[in-house]
Amino acid sequence: MKSTPTDAAFLARAIAAGAGEAEADLVVRNVRVFSVIDGSMIESDIAIVGERIVGITGDYAGRREIDGGGRVAVPGFIDTHLHVESSLVTPFEFDRCVLPHGVTTAICDPHEIANVLGAEGIRYFLESSLETVMDLRVNLSSCVPATSFETSGACLEIEDLLPLREHEKVIGLAEFMNFPGVLARDPKVLAKLEAFQGGHIDGHAPLLSGMALNGYLAAGIRTDHEATTAEEALEKLAKGMNILIREGSVSKDLDALAPILQPDVSAFVALCTDDRNPLDIAEEGHIDSMIRRLIAKGIRPLDAYRAASWSGANAFGLKDRGHIAPGWRADIVLLDDFEDCQVASVISGGRLVERSTFAARTIVDPVGLDSVRASKVSPDAFQVGAANSDVDVIGVVPGRIITEHLKRNLPVVDGKAQMDLQQDVLKVAVVERHKHTGNIGCGFVSGFGMTEGAIASSVGHDSHNICVVGADEVAMAAAVNRVIDMKGGFAVARGSDVIAELPLPVAGLMSLEPFETVKEQLEVLREAARGLGCILPEPFLQVAFLPLPVIPHLKITDLGVFDVNRFQLVAQ
Amino acid sequence: MKSTPTDAAFLARAIAAGAGEAEADLVVRNVRVFSVIDGSMIESDIAIVGERIVGITGDYAGRREIDGGGRVAVPGFIDTHLHVESSLVTPFEFDRCVLPHGVTTAICDPHEIANVLGAEGIRYFLESSLETVMDLRVNLSSCVPATSFETSGACLEIEDLLPLREHEKVIGLAEFMNFPGVLARDPKVLAKLEAFQGGHIDGHAPLLSGMALNGYLAAGIRTDHEATTAEEALEKLAKGMNILIREGSVSKDLDALAPILQPDVSAFVALCTDDRNPLDIAEEGHIDSMIRRLIAKGIRPLDAYRAASWSGANAFGLKDRGHIAPGWRADIVLLDDFEDCQVASVISGGRLVERSTFAARTIVDPVGLDSVRASKVSPDAFQVGAANSDVDVIGVVPGRIITEHLKRNLPVVDGKAQMDLQQDVLKVAVVERHKHTGNIGCGFVSGFGMTEGAIASSVGHDSHNICVVGADEVAMAAAVNRVIDMKGGFAVARGSDVIAELPLPVAGLMSLEPFETVKEQLEVLREAARGLGCILPEPFLQVAFLPLPVIPHLKITDLGVFDVNRFQLVAQ
Repeated sequence: MKSTPTDAAFLARAIAAGAGEAEADLVVRNVRVFSVIDGSMIESDIAIVGERIVGITGDYAGRREIDGGGRVAVPGFIDTHLHVESSLVTPFEFDRCVLPHGVTTAICDPHEIANVLGAEGIRYFLESSLETVMDLRVNLSSCVPATSFETSGACLEIEDLLPLREHEKVIGLAEFMNFPGVLARDPKVLAKLEAFQGGHIDGHAPLLSGMALNGYLAAGIRTDHEATTAEEALEKLAKGMNILIREGSVSKDLDALAPILQPDVSAFVALCTDDRNPLDIAEEGHIDSMIRRLIAKGIRPLDAYRAASWSGANAFGLKDRGHIAPGWRADIVLLDDFEDCQVASVISGGRLVERSTFAARTIVDPVGLDSVRASKVSPDAFQVGAANSDVDVIGVVPGRIITEHLKRNLPVVDGKAQMDLQQDVLKVAVVERHKHTGNIGCGFVSGFGMTEGAIASSVGHDSHNICVVGADEVAMAAAVNRVIDMKGGFAVARGSDVIAELPLPVAGLMSLEPFETVKEQLEVLREAARGLGCILPEPFLQVAFLPLPVIPHLKITDLGVFDVNRFQLVAQ
Repeated sequence: MKSTPTDAAFLARAIAAGAGEAEADLVVRNVRVFSVIDGSMIESDIAIVGERIVGITGDYAGRREIDGGGRVAVPGFIDTHLHVESSLVTPFEFDRCVLPHGVTTAICDPHEIANVLGAEGIRYFLESSLETVMDLRVNLSSCVPATSFETSGACLEIEDLLPLREHEKVIGLAEFMNFPGVLARDPKVLAKLEAFQGGHIDGHAPLLSGMALNGYLAAGIRTDHEATTAEEALEKLAKGMNILIREGSVSKDLDALAPILQPDVSAFVALCTDDRNPLDIAEEGHIDSMIRRLIAKGIRPLDAYRAASWSGANAFGLKDRGHIAPGWRADIVLLDDFEDCQVASVISGGRLVERSTFAARTIVDPVGLDSVRASKVSPDAFQVGAANSDVDVIGVVPGRIITEHLKRNLPVVDGKAQMDLQQDVLKVAVVERHKHTGNIGCGFVSGFGMTEGAIASSVGHDSHNICVVGADEVAMAAAVNRVIDMKGGFAVARGSDVIAELPLPVAGLMSLEPFETVKEQLEVLREAARGLGCILPEPFLQVAFLPLPVIPHLKITDLGVFDVNRFQLVAQ
């Protein structure tokens, strides 16, 4: 929601209320205030004027008073890096879904919608960010498209980003995933880096180390959420990067990185979810679940809560939040259980979060409702020419977006390689859906375990063409065509029948439905995929990341199978 | 010195050198890099391009290479709050004096010159800050004059500050010492606070606690250097203030506050000198001496060096410095002794600090060379009317700027109270010197121990009228008149003879001489004061703080003796 002015009249009210000489707007009585600075726990009221805390450690009176019931109060949580699109709902449903988990600030990168719609997609997020109850902050997508080896819906250059840079909700430049471009001093990359030297440049440098990491950091990049081992994180920390521990629906680094969250460095470590779907949020939670698990692993509550609040705010230059004290933003989480991080209620920018708080928002009209522009496909579109029977196969690793580069001996018929269900080798294809090019990249994948049918998705990182994995070509065509009919979404087909679906008509990425409905539809889809023999816990997320050509080792785009290590298409 | 642009051409050079694909500008070989993030010590080269570190943990080649000789490298020190004027030399001599102690960033408040010359004085500092080798940053003086109970040379309102706010060296608003004005919601105070809500507002709130402190903090104030006990500092820390431990020539808080510098809070504690004269800098050092003493008191080196660098930078929003790693500002101190903080050499903004570095600066012409505007005084100007013999006397406390409010029974002759050397009660007077008002405030002071003569100073916080303390009125007049003749300075008189002096012609505050000369002259002055029987180790600094009406308990201005607690002049 729009921030209230901090003018002289406001300051006079804040000072008077803080000094106990006038009523506050809101007083939370009878809480134990936890300090993420010194780890102390003080029984106190909390007095709030507008969006600002004005008093603790005193007895206050307010126009509205609520009883904290002796609960512990901690600063609102900050998700330091995420793609709202991965929750499959609009920013407004994301707000309603995630804020009750205590996430009062979310720093998003609208990278997915930007790949489909360009600046129009980012503007949709910026306009929405002015209306959400949580403080939704935006880093501007830095690498759209991620590579030139795929067809995206848009291309963002420095000229497209500059007009957005001064928006009040913009922090800086989002995850700079094109690290080869940085190290190669690509002029277009340098132009973007130059424009944000005075602000924040978020990093994305999986496995980068040593002198290559030095070169990347010399560009002024300061945060990273791609460390997947403690060793990698510790090198990055020592080199001055803030480490964002990530726990998404697919990429899960909490177990590996928890050991680094020690007292000396907790001011330099933050938390993020990157990509988390509403099913996981419902079943596990959000940043709250990360705090809970960190403490259960033996991390001190001071370090876990500090990482979840002050450290994240500080890493991204949000100096007004991350601590409960006079003068700080009134983002407060009241806990039923401190060590188990059970959220009882949330105050966001001075507002107690209730059903009516969400109902009072002005909803921004969604964009990109006609973004799936592809002609229907037939089963014979998914043919893979093969010079010999030794074929490159993408090896899926459950719960990882990194893939393996496998070689499999497959049957070849009339110069075309065939699937081999005995070896769990299915077909995978990416159908271009932005520009009616008719491009279809085809290849093979192992690890899904399906024995029949197909699953298709218009979410296919990062260009978001339609990605389909199937055990037969008829089902693959049926699933893809249903996605085209729905103008985006997920579909599961058995033979020519579509047996489960989830429409995602907003840029082919997000639903128009409430998050509860999306969660239920995802459960049906998951069951349907299981019914085809799929053994992956998150089949749609794994499909969605098969086209991502900046993550090692073997991926697929609408132009074909892509060797990430060699950064080139695989000859077929 | 002017910062070099961080444009695409620079970034290309930085990235290439950091990745080891091109020569750096400067390489420091064979050092042990100490990390203020994790406390690690790594044997490495340090590669630098322009003002930026581009590589550690690698072997680098540079156009210039220097041998670190196995020394420990720590980040440049940051003095987070000081008045350059208190060093009695110009910003250029301050630079030459203090930078070799490892202070690569100094955040100054030109409060003293602003009280004499107004915005012209601040502009002199801003122009100088573009030329010094160290990075001299400026907080804009917030409270000029400090009170309305004195005559200052200038008055700075919000209209005067706004044109200076966007200068590249300005951080924000300097120490907001008018805390009564904040709590009273004075409209002129609120206008200043409003204008800097988006930036930094430095605090100054001695002894403020509880709900009054809450009210002050609700205004958005975040740093404080006035805590003098651990208890006071801990309340301020818990309430989200960054605590700047101060060790000046008069105000010395290091011993009292060292215990708070513990691992959990060292990211929130910084160091400052506030007011330190060149004699102390020569004899003890600067921030380096604070680090040395903190470690000697058992504080971990990680916490001491972190407070001296990263924590100070972070508290004031200087995100580019305070750590040695690629992408960070090349402010580096090489140490001969790590635990004893013995500085061997200094790199400031990528430049090795040598004699020639200072010689290459463009010196800005000094201002305020005719700022002492007062008529000569005669001995009978220092009379104090007394209704009875029970007289208010300022009690000086050695090494503190807080004074005691004493009552002494003094001889009264013809309705005038007299000094009483037996009780160590001398006369003190403040002679207005800005506007030829002829104002002379007179009173009594105890604690100097002088048995003859007088010492006078045109440095008299914060309005910088001429303050004189003497054991006889003839000497007082002689000392004051010599200060007027010199257009500012310190003078010591015995009878009608001036026996020692230091001209301070720049606004009556700063010398035009090299700091080495000023140091020698101060030694002569100190000896001269001792020769008069003075028992204070820092007589001129103690004289200079007698007129400061925002520090408890009893002070004196050109309008008379001032009761700080009641915030009113004492009736005589």
